[in-house]
Amino acid sequence: MIKLNFAGIRSREEMYRYLQGKLNLPESRGENLDNIYAMLSEASGRIHIIVEGLDKSRKRLGSNLDGVLKTLRDAEAVTENLTIEVREQIDAGKEWMDNPGVVEQSCAYSRPVLVETNEKPVPHNSQEGLMYRAEGRPYVRLRYPNAMNVQLQIGDMMYPFLETEKDVWTVTLPLEPGFYYTNLYVDNCLVLNPFLPIGYGFSRPVNYIEIGPVPDFFQMKDVPHGDIRHEYYNSSVTGRTETCIVYVPPGYEENRGSYPVLYLQHGFGENERGWVWQGKVNHIMDNLLAQGKAVPMLIVMANGMVMDETAEGETILRHNLFPEELVEDIIPFIEKKYRVKADRDFRAMAGLSMGSMQTSMTVCRYGELFGWEGLFSGFMHDCMGENQDNSFLEIMKDENFQKGLHLFFRAMGRQDEFWDRFAEDDTFCEENKIPCIRKEYEGGHDWNVWRQCIRDFLPLLFQDKEPLA
Amino acid sequence: MIKLNFAGIRSREEMYRYLQGKLNLPESRGENLDNIYAMLSEASGRIHIIVEGLDKSRKRLGSNLDGVLKTLRDAEAVTENLTIEVREQIDAGKEWMDNPGVVEQSCAYSRPVLVETNEKPVPHNSQEGLMYRAEGRPYVRLRYPNAMNVQLQIGDMMYPFLETEKDVWTVTLPLEPGFYYTNLYVDNCLVLNPFLPIGYGFSRPVNYIEIGPVPDFFQMKDVPHGDIRHEYYNSSVTGRTETCIVYVPPGYEENRGSYPVLYLQHGFGENERGWVWQGKVNHIMDNLLAQGKAVPMLIVMANGMVMDETAEGETILRHNLFPEELVEDIIPFIEKKYRVKADRDFRAMAGLSMGSMQTSMTVCRYGELFGWEGLFSGFMHDCMGENQDNSFLEIMKDENFQKGLHLFFRAMGRQDEFWDRFAEDDTFCEENKIPCIRKEYEGGHDWNVWRQCIRDFLPLLFQDKEPLA
Repeated sequence: MIKLNFAGIRSREEMYRYLQGKLNLPESRGENLDNIYAMLSEASGRIHIIVEGLDKSRKRLGSNLDGVLKTLRDAEAVTENLTIEVREQIDAGKEWMDNPGVVEQSCAYSRPVLVETNEKPVPHNSQEGLMYRAEGRPYVRLRYPNAMNVQLQIGDMMYPFLETEKDVWTVTLPLEPGFYYTNLYVDNCLVLNPFLPIGYGFSRPVNYIEIGPVPDFFQMKDVPHGDIRHEYYNSSVTGRTETCIVYVPPGYEENRGSYPVLYLQHGFGENERGWVWQGKVNHIMDNLLAQGKAVPMLIVMANGMVMDETAEGETILRHNLFPEELVEDIIPFIEKKYRVKADRDFRAMAGLSMGSMQTSMTVCRYGELFGWEGLFSGFMHDCMGENQDNSFLEIMKDENFQKGLHLFFRAMGRQDEFWDRFAEDDTFCEENKIPCIRKEYEGGHDWNVWRQCIRDFLPLLFQDKEPLA
Repeated sequence: MIKLNFAGIRSREEMYRYLQGKLNLPESRGENLDNIYAMLSEASGRIHIIVEGLDKSRKRLGSNLDGVLKTLRDAEAVTENLTIEVREQIDAGKEWMDNPGVVEQSCAYSRPVLVETNEKPVPHNSQEGLMYRAEGRPYVRLRYPNAMNVQLQIGDMMYPFLETEKDVWTVTLPLEPGFYYTNLYVDNCLVLNPFLPIGYGFSRPVNYIEIGPVPDFFQMKDVPHGDIRHEYYNSSVTGRTETCIVYVPPGYEENRGSYPVLYLQHGFGENERGWVWQGKVNHIMDNLLAQGKAVPMLIVMANGMVMDETAEGETILRHNLFPEELVEDIIPFIEKKYRVKADRDFRAMAGLSMGSMQTSMTVCRYGELFGWEGLFSGFMHDCMGENQDNSFLEIMKDENFQKGLHLFFRAMGRQDEFWDRFAEDDTFCEENKIPCIRKEYEGGHDWNVWRQCIRDFLPLLFQDKEPLA
């Protein structure tokens, strides 16, 4: 292991002398980046170089330092046994790293930090999780003292970790900023790790990562914050007590007026907590409200993965029971407990993926209840299950029904695997002259697109209607 | 693998004939439990017996069936290569298994169930997690297709799993009912599993199990439910936006009166969510209120693991900054946003373990603010960190201060590893004639005791004071 600490170095010349000594270069090869590259990429045996003190020397060394760093990385890329580990304090430009909009997960507000009861400071090198190299490249660092093999699966790609220090495994992720569900394999076993955030997807708790830089619109800002409520209601549809999450905008407790409501649904395998902890809808709404870009409203999120039992006692998903549960159980519960406007002009529904199908079903079947509709990565047609009955869509052909909808918002990521279905809905809308606001986003079938959908959808809701009264 | 399905069997004689055939016993040995035991315990090679259909045959076969089952278990206990797996539907007596008070975790309301998008029923044998054998014995069943070795650590004990079916690992847990933090090791690597609930302890997300039967007092009942709110406030002490959890009792939105408040703190390594998702304080309070045993109040829970930075930029825990944060930041935030009685007669504080030290510090330093105090597994003295300053306790010797406390509640589990410190506090109270309500519980330093503490503490609060006004 070679440790390069640039903290005290004051000039280009001093830096090269330092590198020459540390890397054990012959004098003639010490003053040229090409020579450093050649030496490292030709070396035999495992070499692990730790780079420190970049923050404190960058001001003085500037592009010279960046040149050295790039050379080390270039050599690492072509040399199997070479590992470059850059350790650096978070610089001012990465404030978003600790923003609660980025860090908060359902079980914790802050990033987990292992501390001892004796109140000793936590050494920097004990930290685990997603980190960033000096140049901004994201990497994951996890401790597995007894592992033989650690891999991170993201989408279809498998990224192998290297044991870059004793017991410590790291992997650099060549990924664009954004939200990614991840599957971690330790010795080929799928596991969760406590130092990557834990959300809910694929019908179970699941690790994800949030790679920065993170856009402003879902970071927590110094603005008034709504609160997030766990409510419990009795469902006549499932026969159980169920839960929903309610975003209550800032000012609700102090004011006396009645509020409009958006019912907002997650996708297949997720749950009622997804829009807050993964979608960051509370921060998105807080920020829009602070900018005067949206009308204060409640946002109610329930569990669309309605489970039922077959005659044989087996568990089965009935996603198309949700419209009934919403109308029979959830809306009456909300309208009894909260000061809301019980009127279709002030009641909206939106959902992503499976939630968009449920939204389409609900708004078509209960048009008298909803005046605003949003389908994110969204399907007008129900395409889940085996016996799809899409007769509910007939009413969309009715011109009066169309006119009654104040907003019909459809959106899809351009790289979404279900693009063809969106195109089929396009055709359906054209053939039946169904007006809509139609958006395309760069991206796939994921939370990066859905966050943009809700950011663009919320400002369109309940505008030009009576103000709160 | 031998499958014994008792579902269609109608008599004792039929059962023995069935066993004789299935277990391949010579005729002379088929009608006697001792013979079955001898045959199984003498057999060579691995034998895996799956037992099914007990529910449907118990009525007819009664104690005969129990005798067979006991014999199989007795043989299993002494035979290394014999595995008995009893598969049974949840019977009516185990309704608590699916009670939300048992199942809900911070990231999900219901137990995770893997379902397919095609809406096919979920086969019973694909389920994972904590289950119960017919006789009620708890076991954990997890899928690890590529594991060599799976172990569950609970306290100081390590329980090895057996691969009882291809890719499926099970372990029977000889544990009393209750809450246990668990560490799962797969091929000697500490991991989390998504089919055991995930809470927060040891300064990180952590798996736990809740072994039943589960007492009534923290199950969700058909009573009015309070809601759980995530609030965000600015902290002058940490310089960040922080979060707290607020239990708001049923009726708060409909009524107009002002409420008393309990500030309730978690222990070392846990966070503000612990009292709800692990402590079940919301269900405990819902049930007490429904029985008329407690006064409606808000319960406010904040993060007592106050993190700070050293001069060298290292992260450090400063648990004794919490009293200041509570008084300067949290109480003003709550009293501005909620309709609460801003009066020491209606303000209580309690905490468990580290939270009890913080409670003791806070109430002693800010006696003018608090009239009620609870220390669960609790310490009057601050015994964390290296430079403990316990001078705050001096005021407890003051008779007027003592008289001003409407309630001073101290409790400890009899098997708690910190019992000696509780005894030292006993001595301190005796020497200084400090009156208190003192409780002992069967149990250790864990949530099983803390749930009982809060159950017994809540009914004592704010009694004999003015009703809500």
